[in-house]
Amino acid sequence: MKLPAGVSSADFASAIAEFERAVGKAWVFTSDEDVDLYRDAFSPFLHEPEELVASAALAPATTEEVQQIVRIANRFSIPLYPISTGKNLGYGGSAPAYSGSVVVDLKRMNRVIEVNEANAFALVEPGVSYFDLYRHIQERKLKVWIDCPDPGWGSVIGNALDRGGGYTTASYRNHFDSHCGMEIVLPNGELLRTGMGAIPNAKTWQQYKSGCGPWIDGIFSQSNFGIVTKMGFWLMPEPEAYLRGTVSLTRYGDLSAMVETLNYLENARITTGFPDIASPLNGYPPIGQVQLWNETGPPPMTEEHRKLLSSAKLGYSPELEAYGLKSGIPYWQLWLSFHGPAEVIEAQWQATQRHFAKFEHVKFSVVDRVKLPIDPSRAASYHEPELGVPSLRAFSIGARSPWNPTPSKGHMWFSPIVPRTGEAIIEANRVFSEAARELDMPLFRSFCMPACFWERSFIFILATPVAEDPAINKRYREGFKKLIAIGGQQGWGEYRTAPVFQKSVMDVYSFNDHVLQRFHETLKDAIDPNGILSPGRYAIWPRHLREKQS
Amino acid sequence: MKLPAGVSSADFASAIAEFERAVGKAWVFTSDEDVDLYRDAFSPFLHEPEELVASAALAPATTEEVQQIVRIANRFSIPLYPISTGKNLGYGGSAPAYSGSVVVDLKRMNRVIEVNEANAFALVEPGVSYFDLYRHIQERKLKVWIDCPDPGWGSVIGNALDRGGGYTTASYRNHFDSHCGMEIVLPNGELLRTGMGAIPNAKTWQQYKSGCGPWIDGIFSQSNFGIVTKMGFWLMPEPEAYLRGTVSLTRYGDLSAMVETLNYLENARITTGFPDIASPLNGYPPIGQVQLWNETGPPPMTEEHRKLLSSAKLGYSPELEAYGLKSGIPYWQLWLSFHGPAEVIEAQWQATQRHFAKFEHVKFSVVDRVKLPIDPSRAASYHEPELGVPSLRAFSIGARSPWNPTPSKGHMWFSPIVPRTGEAIIEANRVFSEAARELDMPLFRSFCMPACFWERSFIFILATPVAEDPAINKRYREGFKKLIAIGGQQGWGEYRTAPVFQKSVMDVYSFNDHVLQRFHETLKDAIDPNGILSPGRYAIWPRHLREKQS
Repeated sequence: MKLPAGVSSADFASAIAEFERAVGKAWVFTSDEDVDLYRDAFSPFLHEPEELVASAALAPATTEEVQQIVRIANRFSIPLYPISTGKNLGYGGSAPAYSGSVVVDLKRMNRVIEVNEANAFALVEPGVSYFDLYRHIQERKLKVWIDCPDPGWGSVIGNALDRGGGYTTASYRNHFDSHCGMEIVLPNGELLRTGMGAIPNAKTWQQYKSGCGPWIDGIFSQSNFGIVTKMGFWLMPEPEAYLRGTVSLTRYGDLSAMVETLNYLENARITTGFPDIASPLNGYPPIGQVQLWNETGPPPMTEEHRKLLSSAKLGYSPELEAYGLKSGIPYWQLWLSFHGPAEVIEAQWQATQRHFAKFEHVKFSVVDRVKLPIDPSRAASYHEPELGVPSLRAFSIGARSPWNPTPSKGHMWFSPIVPRTGEAIIEANRVFSEAARELDMPLFRSFCMPACFWERSFIFILATPVAEDPAINKRYREGFKKLIAIGGQQGWGEYRTAPVFQKSVMDVYSFNDHVLQRFHETLKDAIDPNGILSPGRYAIWPRHLREKQS
Repeated sequence: MKLPAGVSSADFASAIAEFERAVGKAWVFTSDEDVDLYRDAFSPFLHEPEELVASAALAPATTEEVQQIVRIANRFSIPLYPISTGKNLGYGGSAPAYSGSVVVDLKRMNRVIEVNEANAFALVEPGVSYFDLYRHIQERKLKVWIDCPDPGWGSVIGNALDRGGGYTTASYRNHFDSHCGMEIVLPNGELLRTGMGAIPNAKTWQQYKSGCGPWIDGIFSQSNFGIVTKMGFWLMPEPEAYLRGTVSLTRYGDLSAMVETLNYLENARITTGFPDIASPLNGYPPIGQVQLWNETGPPPMTEEHRKLLSSAKLGYSPELEAYGLKSGIPYWQLWLSFHGPAEVIEAQWQATQRHFAKFEHVKFSVVDRVKLPIDPSRAASYHEPELGVPSLRAFSIGARSPWNPTPSKGHMWFSPIVPRTGEAIIEANRVFSEAARELDMPLFRSFCMPACFWERSFIFILATPVAEDPAINKRYREGFKKLIAIGGQQGWGEYRTAPVFQKSVMDVYSFNDHVLQRFHETLKDAIDPNGILSPGRYAIWPRHLREKQS
């Protein structure tokens, strides 16, 4: 067992005994076998002493138990690392940011407290997974959709607090933005409710976001200022129909204007589903199709095509473009989806085509026209989350298959945010492909497309593998940190990262001598003076550990 | 001159001298004549010594000058009260929350730093009014709309920080939600940028909201933790067309189902403009029409109708309903607006009608079908903000006119948030009409409808008059505080209020022995240890004034 630094075995044992009194002996885990379950399956420190590991884990069942845990931790200076449920693979797993922390696993707090159909909102506990919430809704035949990330086994609250994204309509797929109201156990054990929830008899806790006075919710995301024990979410009324269409363009030079047109359509709410942006000619699929292709195999590619690809630069060569025109393979392809009344989504699709009509050789195709609700069993022929259905299919990524004989051991997500322009797509490809070559990292094969989880910006989500061999992992870790810095020099920052890279990422956010990080520390010292909550998360260390870590 | 408590004349004079060196003598205002301009024209303490007044005012031109001001204030313990521009009438004006504060008037910081047409965003300084931003856009013929409150003379930043609302599409009319990135002078004089702006070479400061690590922006709204000197905003691409239609219903009992249908349509993004909800039979107009009716006079009403109204209870009597059916005056009326491509908004209007077809006697009417852009001069025939055009017409409310011979002296807005249900409309009318009668306050004439500035909840915006007579004002002030408490007992809280009522309002947010307010104070002490910024704003007092005030 890895004890937290500075805590004696005797004190730790006393704390464990008190934790047992608080949550019951059965819910305090101290054996290696149990605690190992909280290791990060994708840790880039596999087989190395630096791997971030917990000392023990607790699984409280109620908010009151969470409060007791926090009070005990304060008395014994035990660092706690709350997790909700799910694994957060690629972003650090469920392992703590500071080795020796006691994981507080909230999986038993899994009550769906309310789903309101008429005004389309939910109130849940942190142990509620997307599957739990989906099932709760299906069992009651409520006509509301949830917005799920890939995979859907994680916590609705956890994903929102990590500021993750999903696949339906813009305002719902930003999981933090779609929350409304929180209940939080503060580091001193006190219970706080935000927004309208601060009114004892609140009638609009899940209906009006910001309450009165400073709106504090944001500081509890990607931080270590409190343990969120309840959270409200706005849901999407079940749409009447779904339409998915593709827009295919033939010229490399179309990229910029294509992105501009997409931006107009999305910002004007003409296309409202997840816009998926692919480059078939570069062999780059739409994200929503990757999982299906992993099952059925990728679309076939001729030898000629493969050769042209390997000699293209930043996804371009005149010959590649000519090949695309000749063989009818689009350079760029948008997969746009529309949810709503049939007459509205048909009109939105019409307007979309009208706005893209200015492109030479543009082709439009309707992939799906679905009357909703569909039979859940039929959802499997789609990328389920786009239909509001949670799925575990994402695990097909990197899995062994006839066309992928070497499954991956795991990966770390490198996820920089770049501007929503064609130029930024090409520039990011240039910068990161050069860096990957120089660092000898298998970042992406050739030309890579961004994703549109959030409005107004692009995100590249690039997998850096983890390996069995510590020497390789060491090189990848160092490479990953260099990628972060290289992105930072371009003015691109990551939206989220695993604990082992949080300092490197936050170091990029360095305006005015890192004043933002110093501000985070000011908040930390005030809110959690004993520094017991998730030390090091997002590079926020409590005062007593700050100098040692920096 | 009213000096801040505890500051000697000599110290104050020294501070003023330093302020003069920082911003220039011309921009330091100390004469009564000048400082009076910062009084709240609608103060409920008119002619009374308790009126909240400034000691002096400063008008810096740059962020650096703001930083200098803050540093000087720290040295001399001078309370500062930053304002942006505009008057915030009904919510406290530009007068400080703590008498004797020095107003920091940011009106000279009025640069529109960027308007990006392709991705529809702007970066502005606090002195930029809605008119300024609108003119900047018009002069350059950029195809983007702003979302304005009524009236439009105020600051884009100031309104967002006060969490005000406007009249276009849901995601744009929430002015705080539509912001993206801030620059802030902290109480210690340091400059901080939030979101992606913390990257020195940031490329997506106005394009991705939350950056990495805790998202702190929210705590700078309705608070006193920093002076915002730049802020990004997402704009709406200029729509191709505008449609406004009304849905009219005849039965009192239709209210609940009408609200439910409206909620479905809005949450599903089928109707996206400001939904205006009226009761013609109760003589209650849609907000967007009030200003036009103030100019042309309200729609005529028969003597019979007037009589029936005066005997109706909570907007209802069987005779009133029968009169409505007979005379074709709807009980309830929704004014729904749609912005977008003509084919889309026609389809949305079709779908809207389909969803309301279940109501007996429902009538639909298209009030406006406008191809955009319209000639700005024609905007005056509409409620301009619904077409993205700022206006001063709101000042017609309460102004002298042939049908309003006694103009109002001013008003305080009482603005509780209630659930988005028909039941809540009736319950709020019951609670507040009983309270108004008991408190002898002219809160509203008879039956009153809420507004839909924000998604998922209703807001009642009720004017409590201010008078020339201190005795009357005293009664109204006390009544106002009682209204706040009565609303609080129902679980309804206000979204915003004037400084004189901020303590009463925040006292309603009292869950767990006022832990939210204590948390605000914890933040205050950490971020502004000398307590120089806006003492008392939203009931957040610095430590040295806390006990005196509570």
